[in-house]
Amino acid sequence: MRAVVIHAPKDLRLDTLAERQPGPGEVMVRIGMGGICGSDLHYYNHGGFGTVRIREPMTLGHEVSGTVAAVGEGVANVRPGTRVAVNPSRPCLVCKYCEAGLHNQCLDMRFFGSAMRFPHVQGAFSEHVTVLARQAVPVPERISLAEAAMAEPLSVCLHAANQAGALFGKRVLVTGCGPIGALMVLVARTAGAAEIVATDIASRPLETALKVGATRAIDPVKDPDALKPYAADKGSFDVHFEASGTEVALRTGIELVRPRGTIVQIGVGGEAKLPMNVLVAKEIALRGTFRFDDEFDLAVRMMGDGIIDVRPVISDTFPVADAHAAFELAGDRNKAMKVQIAF
Amino acid sequence: MRAVVIHAPKDLRLDTLAERQPGPGEVMVRIGMGGICGSDLHYYNHGGFGTVRIREPMTLGHEVSGTVAAVGEGVANVRPGTRVAVNPSRPCLVCKYCEAGLHNQCLDMRFFGSAMRFPHVQGAFSEHVTVLARQAVPVPERISLAEAAMAEPLSVCLHAANQAGALFGKRVLVTGCGPIGALMVLVARTAGAAEIVATDIASRPLETALKVGATRAIDPVKDPDALKPYAADKGSFDVHFEASGTEVALRTGIELVRPRGTIVQIGVGGEAKLPMNVLVAKEIALRGTFRFDDEFDLAVRMMGDGIIDVRPVISDTFPVADAHAAFELAGDRNKAMKVQIAF
Amino acid sequence: MRAVVIHAPKDLRLDTLAERQPGPGEVMVRIGMGGICGSDLHYYNHGGFGTVRIREPMTLGHEVSGTVAAVGEGVANVRPGTRVAVNPSRPCLVCKYCEAGLHNQCLDMRFFGSAMRFPHVQGAFSEHVTVLARQAVPVPERISLAEAAMAEPLSVCLHAANQAGALFGKRVLVTGCGPIGALMVLVARTAGAAEIVATDIASRPLETALKVGATRAIDPVKDPDALKPYAADKGSFDVHFEASGTEVALRTGIELVRPRGTIVQIGVGGEAKLPMNVLVAKEIALRGTFRFDDEFDLAVRMMGDGIIDVRPVISDTFPVADAHAAFELAGDRNKAMKVQIAF
Amino acid sequence: MRAVVIHAPKDLRLDTLAERQPGPGEVMVRIGMGGICGSDLHYYNHGGFGTVRIREPMTLGHEVSGTVAAVGEGVANVRPGTRVAVNPSRPCLVCKYCEAGLHNQCLDMRFFGSAMRFPHVQGAFSEHVTVLARQAVPVPERISLAEAAMAEPLSVCLHAANQAGALFGKRVLVTGCGPIGALMVLVARTAGAAEIVATDIASRPLETALKVGATRAIDPVKDPDALKPYAADKGSFDVHFEASGTEVALRTGIELVRPRGTIVQIGVGGEAKLPMNVLVAKEIALRGTFRFDDEFDLAVRMMGDGIIDVRPVISDTFPVADAHAAFELAGDRNKAMKVQIAF
Repeated sequence: MRAVVIHAPKDLRLDTLAERQPGPGEVMVRIGMGGICGSDLHYYNHGGFGTVRIREPMTLGHEVSGTVAAVGEGVANVRPGTRVAVNPSRPCLVCKYCEAGLHNQCLDMRFFGSAMRFPHVQGAFSEHVTVLARQAVPVPERISLAEAAMAEPLSVCLHAANQAGALFGKRVLVTGCGPIGALMVLVARTAGAAEIVATDIASRPLETALKVGATRAIDPVKDPDALKPYAADKGSFDVHFEASGTEVALRTGIELVRPRGTIVQIGVGGEAKLPMNVLVAKEIALRGTFRFDDEFDLAVRMMGDGIIDVRPVISDTFPVADAHAAFELAGDRNKAMKVQIAF
Repeated sequence: MRAVVIHAPKDLRLDTLAERQPGPGEVMVRIGMGGICGSDLHYYNHGGFGTVRIREPMTLGHEVSGTVAAVGEGVANVRPGTRVAVNPSRPCLVCKYCEAGLHNQCLDMRFFGSAMRFPHVQGAFSEHVTVLARQAVPVPERISLAEAAMAEPLSVCLHAANQAGALFGKRVLVTGCGPIGALMVLVARTAGAAEIVATDIASRPLETALKVGATRAIDPVKDPDALKPYAADKGSFDVHFEASGTEVALRTGIELVRPRGTIVQIGVGGEAKLPMNVLVAKEIALRGTFRFDDEFDLAVRMMGDGIIDVRPVISDTFPVADAHAAFELAGDRNKAMKVQIAF
Repeated sequence: MRAVVIHAPKDLRLDTLAERQPGPGEVMVRIGMGGICGSDLHYYNHGGFGTVRIREPMTLGHEVSGTVAAVGEGVANVRPGTRVAVNPSRPCLVCKYCEAGLHNQCLDMRFFGSAMRFPHVQGAFSEHVTVLARQAVPVPERISLAEAAMAEPLSVCLHAANQAGALFGKRVLVTGCGPIGALMVLVARTAGAAEIVATDIASRPLETALKVGATRAIDPVKDPDALKPYAADKGSFDVHFEASGTEVALRTGIELVRPRGTIVQIGVGGEAKLPMNVLVAKEIALRGTFRFDDEFDLAVRMMGDGIIDVRPVISDTFPVADAHAAFELAGDRNKAMKVQIAF
Repeated sequence: MRAVVIHAPKDLRLDTLAERQPGPGEVMVRIGMGGICGSDLHYYNHGGFGTVRIREPMTLGHEVSGTVAAVGEGVANVRPGTRVAVNPSRPCLVCKYCEAGLHNQCLDMRFFGSAMRFPHVQGAFSEHVTVLARQAVPVPERISLAEAAMAEPLSVCLHAANQAGALFGKRVLVTGCGPIGALMVLVARTAGAAEIVATDIASRPLETALKVGATRAIDPVKDPDALKPYAADKGSFDVHFEASGTEVALRTGIELVRPRGTIVQIGVGGEAKLPMNVLVAKEIALRGTFRFDDEFDLAVRMMGDGIIDVRPVISDTFPVADAHAAFELAGDRNKAMKVQIAF
């Protein structure tokens, strides 16, 4: 089968790999659609991020959906032909964090397409992927495989929302409106936020933010005064979702969030220099959010029930043969939001 | 009456000021004891901190206790002779934060001995101080005026504890064990923490931390490996109270706190460069804590009921005539913990 | 001016009362629309509820909107002609609960049309009402006075939602779908609940529940087995809003809510016999919710911004001359939802 | 080996049963001490409680400690001779509640000495008990086997405390001061409660409550006015732990708890008639608490570190040959607190 494999920065190849038949409790999925994520782009452009670097060829991809091709012994939740979203997260289920119900903090996590471990955990941008049955989540008729492949980034945002407490009636700031930020706007809108201000420095993300429910979209470079009024009386926003990974956006949030407000930093980011005096004086809570846990199933369910519609966030689809072009476009924030590859 | 007035860095004078008779709803307190706080030291040594600078002579001090000398019309909670701890905090009670019950975030706060406003709010290191009746909190017989003057820093720590959720059964790290850090250890001990590790780079704070309940006291400079085991399995501490105001201690906490743990940053601090990738991946909550609210009355009550004994944190007492020496000693972390001035 | 005054059970009169000119900080509102609430019906039908009984003639009504007719000295937030929703709640602002920000628990509350105090606090079903300026909340052009008069019951539901934590992605049960229950469904829908099951024993409420977002509407008398599947595996619902005030509905919730789930009891109710063994074994939290606090302003804002549309809950409007008929219809759950009186 | 087996109400026998050698991952413990719990007493006196009834002979007991006698293959945490507290709780680890980290809500729980399932889960009042290695928790030298056998009831109280949020600085009411209530007082004291009022209608529990930290002990039958002042201003207590299982005590709590306060109902209880109007108007949260989860290990650790001293709650010890007398005494609330059987 063909797979989208990264060998070195910019050296992306369509390799031919052997597929693996499902063992007991496993399922082989014929992949239909796969979304390119920011971490895929880091591997593609830089060979990794921080101390995480590819040290052997690695199939990319962890946002995939498809159709069950074969099931191993004892599998009950799906059968051949079932359309599924594939949960890329495979926690060990026995470490102390798994036992406490914090699976995303698993000490022995296997997550598709990640070079954190060696040998690397191979990704899912391939014609077939064999996973545990629990990782194959059936999707309702109502949603397409393209939408199903959004379950992963959507669940990241559902998990982020859960770190912020109730959003209903709240004033929310979202900085950085690429696919994750835009989905965050969508989640805040679905959760009944009273006001959602979105910022970005590119036009496409701002347009998308407005489409999925932002009350207002601001480019703080073009319009440097637009955010100032929100700083009045120590700040206006109850919650800030920071999805740009930039220090300047995080500092903006610290200035604009009200006393006792919450900032949720999404995505990995690196180092950031912060005005601790302001964070302290306003008693802000700055929380990290990392991947997701049982939000994956919820993401599928809420899309399937028509409560969340992610389609405005999907901008482009490429056949797998054009994977290279897909990755190039995905890296251009002015032109693309979520770029998907059709297998 | 005499007052301890700062005119410029190191220019501390015993000035003679007029006392003010209490108006309706007010109380004049003859000050008995006053503790020197870190912010007093900043005014004394540097004329302020950050952008807050003394622009006119200012009486220092906000940790005081004494005896009611006179009461204005309509005062019912105290009478002449009542021993009181003086709450240095005077929120406006009408702004939106006061109305929401967040008095420490008041938009028009008057806090003793603070140069944040101009004209400055004069402090309480003077022979008499006139305050609202509600600021004069009667203290039980059981506690001395020296202990009563600890109500303010203790209430800072009670407020910090409230930002961390329940401490009972928790593993707690306290970095920086000057008076605030040591009181934080004491509070964590009183709140039933299962384990309290305290760090400092001076010996006197570490000794005091052990006296007030730390399980272990570590000098991370002298013993650089001592903290390493706590980093195992992504970190050990449920809660970290950061009372040193240093970037290195905050970074240590981010490394040693377990996933989903909480860091409470006490005190103002300046800028700090933080490893956001670690905070994000471990989903740590970093919260600021600022002054206190109704914890002041609770501090008096818990000392009065013998539940909290702050005496091990008081190291020295000077007569007001030696205020200069008191300030010099208070600045020496190896020799002194809380230094108080007797009026 | 004319006012709708209850003198005794079923003895509702259109009395002529003197209007009161606004003093400093006050506003006189010409009432446009007023909704009949369950407590109004209790006064109308029974002269009160529990130990609360009318002991003198009392103007009914606390769900009103109108147009500012005159303003007293120092009023800045509105001017004559401003359309407003009238907040019927007037806490003392100085008791310990007000100071702590829990205004709905005020020890000296004045709430329109309530016989809890004597002399009674007169209600707002009159041609003019004079209130504190802060009670007159301007409403956007977008919403009608009929909708504005829904701000009060909507704020009751917003407050109830706040007692339940985040509803986003949750499975919600609402028992009793009169005006409050239906608004509760609407609030849960707006807050992004994943599933909302509504129950009632009358058809009109069930139809309305479906209109405002219930996933499913069940009459447990007609279809006694319909709820059983939700009891599987110790229960299915994360949150139960109980708005019927009946013991049987509360017991149903205890059976159907999952372990660690939350039940929010809305409305006053009387005594109820509960299976404490089940509540204990499943570690359910049963919470009361009472009136509202700053949710009133939020209710106006969310209607004004088009986030919440309450119109499907308003069923009938009567001119004030037909107040008697309005009260009779409002008492018929099969025929009416929210009945309003136009002044 | 001998075992304390209930055959029918009051028909308690010392039967001779076969011991079971430990399989892989298992441990055989030679029981040293076992405490009699309320549920043991229910089986002894009535053959069960509610719908739970003994249908075959069942060894009683689930509060036991002892010394490891033999270990199965692959056991690493203990070895023969290790003194251990035995955790009577054995969740399935795979059901949805276990996976979410809520092991005490396990759908397939095996708990020592419980007739909830059939065949019954045999208890631990026998000379040897074979358990999973994870159920055998090593105890520090500092504590005796008698104290170690208190780990179970103590963990019940730690779990109850966790349902109430932080107790530090809070005003706490404990109703019912048998072994569980007294341990609850002890936990609240250790957690830094500002005030603890304990009630019971027997003298021995009240005396014990004072010994373990109650501020005040009240017999509401002998002194019916003593609790009245706590009802002022809508109520005084932040938290009420109800450990009597009586309706009257629960109703008392609803009256005495402040608005937004919390009541934690411990133990199973049956039906109770409650004033929902008061619970609603004061927005009280009434929560159940059931058994415990990882609090068992914490209980051992906190006793082992000298933070919690349970000895004042142990009143009597009998040799196993006198098991019958032990059960009789344990049922007399005026004479006994925790009665233990030495094996």
